Amino acid sequence: MKAYRDLAPSPRIIMTPGPVEVDPRVLRAMSYPVLGQFDPEFTGLMNETMEMLRGVFQTANKWAYPVDGTSRSGIEAVLVSLIEPGDSVLVPIYGRFGYLLAEIARRCGAQVIVMEREWGGVFPQEEIIEGIMRHRPKLVALVHGETSTGRLQPLEGIGRACREQDVLLVVDAVATIGGVEVAVDAWEVDAVIGGTQKCLSIPAGLAPVTYNSRVETILLKRKRIERGLLMEDAEDIKGFVAIRSNYLDLSQLQDYWGPARLNHHTEATTMLYALREGLRLTLEEGLVNRFARHALHESALVAGLLGMGLELFGDPSCKMPMVTCVRIPPGVDGESVRTMLLEHFGLEIASSFGPLKGRIWRIGTMGYSCSKRNVLLALGALEAALLRHGVSLPPGEALQAAMDVYAIGSG
Amino acid sequence: MKAYRDLAPSPRIIMTPGPVEVDPRVLRAMSYPVLGQFDPEFTGLMNETMEMLRGVFQTANKWAYPVDGTSRSGIEAVLVSLIEPGDSVLVPIYGRFGYLLAEIARRCGAQVIVMEREWGGVFPQEEIIEGIMRHRPKLVALVHGETSTGRLQPLEGIGRACREQDVLLVVDAVATIGGVEVAVDAWEVDAVIGGTQKCLSIPAGLAPVTYNSRVETILLKRKRIERGLLMEDAEDIKGFVAIRSNYLDLSQLQDYWGPARLNHHTEATTMLYALREGLRLTLEEGLVNRFARHALHESALVAGLLGMGLELFGDPSCKMPMVTCVRIPPGVDGESVRTMLLEHFGLEIASSFGPLKGRIWRIGTMGYSCSKRNVLLALGALEAALLRHGVSLPPGEALQAAMDVYAIGSG
Repeated sequence: MKAYRDLAPSPRIIMTPGPVEVDPRVLRAMSYPVLGQFDPEFTGLMNETMEMLRGVFQTANKWAYPVDGTSRSGIEAVLVSLIEPGDSVLVPIYGRFGYLLAEIARRCGAQVIVMEREWGGVFPQEEIIEGIMRHRPKLVALVHGETSTGRLQPLEGIGRACREQDVLLVVDAVATIGGVEVAVDAWEVDAVIGGTQKCLSIPAGLAPVTYNSRVETILLKRKRIERGLLMEDAEDIKGFVAIRSNYLDLSQLQDYWGPARLNHHTEATTMLYALREGLRLTLEEGLVNRFARHALHESALVAGLLGMGLELFGDPSCKMPMVTCVRIPPGVDGESVRTMLLEHFGLEIASSFGPLKGRIWRIGTMGYSCSKRNVLLALGALEAALLRHGVSLPPGEALQAAMDVYAIGSG
Repeated sequence: MKAYRDLAPSPRIIMTPGPVEVDPRVLRAMSYPVLGQFDPEFTGLMNETMEMLRGVFQTANKWAYPVDGTSRSGIEAVLVSLIEPGDSVLVPIYGRFGYLLAEIARRCGAQVIVMEREWGGVFPQEEIIEGIMRHRPKLVALVHGETSTGRLQPLEGIGRACREQDVLLVVDAVATIGGVEVAVDAWEVDAVIGGTQKCLSIPAGLAPVTYNSRVETILLKRKRIERGLLMEDAEDIKGFVAIRSNYLDLSQLQDYWGPARLNHHTEATTMLYALREGLRLTLEEGLVNRFARHALHESALVAGLLGMGLELFGDPSCKMPMVTCVRIPPGVDGESVRTMLLEHFGLEIASSFGPLKGRIWRIGTMGYSCSKRNVLLALGALEAALLRHGVSLPPGEALQAAMDVYAIGSG
């Protein structure tokens, strides 16, 4: 047989909007032997993880657990579990991931109403609230942090408006959880999906979700138990009407995560170890400190980029602290610069999607990757790569500007 | 904040039908730093993993890659991507996981026709073929190894019959891949789903699938590209009709795994490292050797169980080599025995589902857990626990019988 070599990934500085570098403590946790899924030690770890997720989501919700898949599996789990074919769903879209919400809702059979905003801005909250009043949908689905454009949608007033109109609010906080305030209860958000491979700095593969009793009420109405688990043939297998997915059915997942411990899938043991350790690191740092860290390194990065004469993309009043979108200088091949950075500096920044493809780079400062060291190394590398691509810029200014933000003295 | 302690899972001998123990080489692979999803080093690892999967599935199929979720996510991905609402699907059921196939198909909108067999046996192939001729479904979905009953369904002739009738054959080989022959091409199976946390001994969290061009043809007809990825608004977002799931849409997944590298989810980096290493171990051992190892340790386990006077459950002519179902002796509380084994011997065996609950234990000999050491330790522990529960049995016989199978001499 063909011989495959030992795994030996090169070291990388990952300054993208995810996946980002993983704390060595999380990597270490992943090297522990596995436990059986119903081993009381393992269910104990599951319970602890739920508790920690409540802390990170700033919620008293009973339900906070991961769906076993990457972030969009959590989004689809929430939408497919709530949406019955024909339900109306309002999706305000201001970037790629808004389109994704609309697409998933449509695949769930929803009548989707979209509101669109040019990429680079967000919606004034009143405009969304007006949309809610006008359309009275069953559900509003909204992206909190849109990594495709680097914009952050304010949410504070939208939850209240939804509650008043008896509309459900579902928020995609995949890119923001752990990096900026996501106050699930204070903002009256009904269901939220977080991401692991971004500001929580855990490998991709789980999608933490939380939801309140308004959501649970709907789930319980739609709930079905798998026939192969029943002692009796009580259920009429022919009359089955239920949530359109089995794998992403939150009504079954909560029976697996709750005291019933009803077998559904086999929990992804090692990913759960990673999630637990990543949440533990987040709570040890403290949410307030963690948000401040993200804001600080963003400031230094932005100062450096402006210092080298680059222009940022998008409305600065709604910029995400953990994603900085930079216009590619005219005449420069953005992919060539990215390749130079990866091949020679072992440093990755991101390209972009759809209408922004080839026009901007996206630089992430997320989680474990969000550090002084990384910001300084990235600025130095980018300056050098741009000079090599013939860009005219004031050499040395970028790093001096960033070092000023960090107040790095000379002696 | 509440202090959570360091992760410190206890050592376990895991003799269940999964999740089972993981080879330390796989655990070590999971502790490596992550790479970005479009880093050429990472896409290189993705391509290698596809190649290795073809080897393990014994197929020349172009498509062989993991779905990012636990095993049933792969099953649902295949079914939801193939089934259009109203399609007829035939599901021969001989245990819990057959019901699961029927349920998933039903949630996909299929008209499901079931054939049922009492738990403990399988179908004569002619009976399934007769069902195919009679019902002429679009698709037959079938479990290869049913861990709920420990039975193995012969498949050799069914693929041929499906091909002749222009019916698709989808096989759930979650429990069998890597432990017993799963000859995808030779058996003319159109789509197969494998499991990681069983005979491949990788943590749960990925679901390897493979499918042929008959399946791909259907996928390409149903394919849609996400609007947020398009440069132009070419697609009429209002006229969207497509596969009912986005996350589990194989037509999008193959564009992510193929040369187009179209962004879908963010591949679960660390799980992919684990899958690659687990497949590498499997191919290094060699499929033939690996199947022989599973058969050998099954023989020793069975000899030991019979030696202590226990009865096996189910038709012996179709027993799975990697799962042995044992009747719980009359008057014994099966859960009490399991708890004693876990708490005092650090050894886990499995309970059972539905009509078999409380009647049998299921003992797994899968992958890294399938070893002489584990079989001998398990027999000794079980004998002691049964004696402690007042069961009358011939002490010492179990291990002597197993040691005879291994031809362990005294000097």
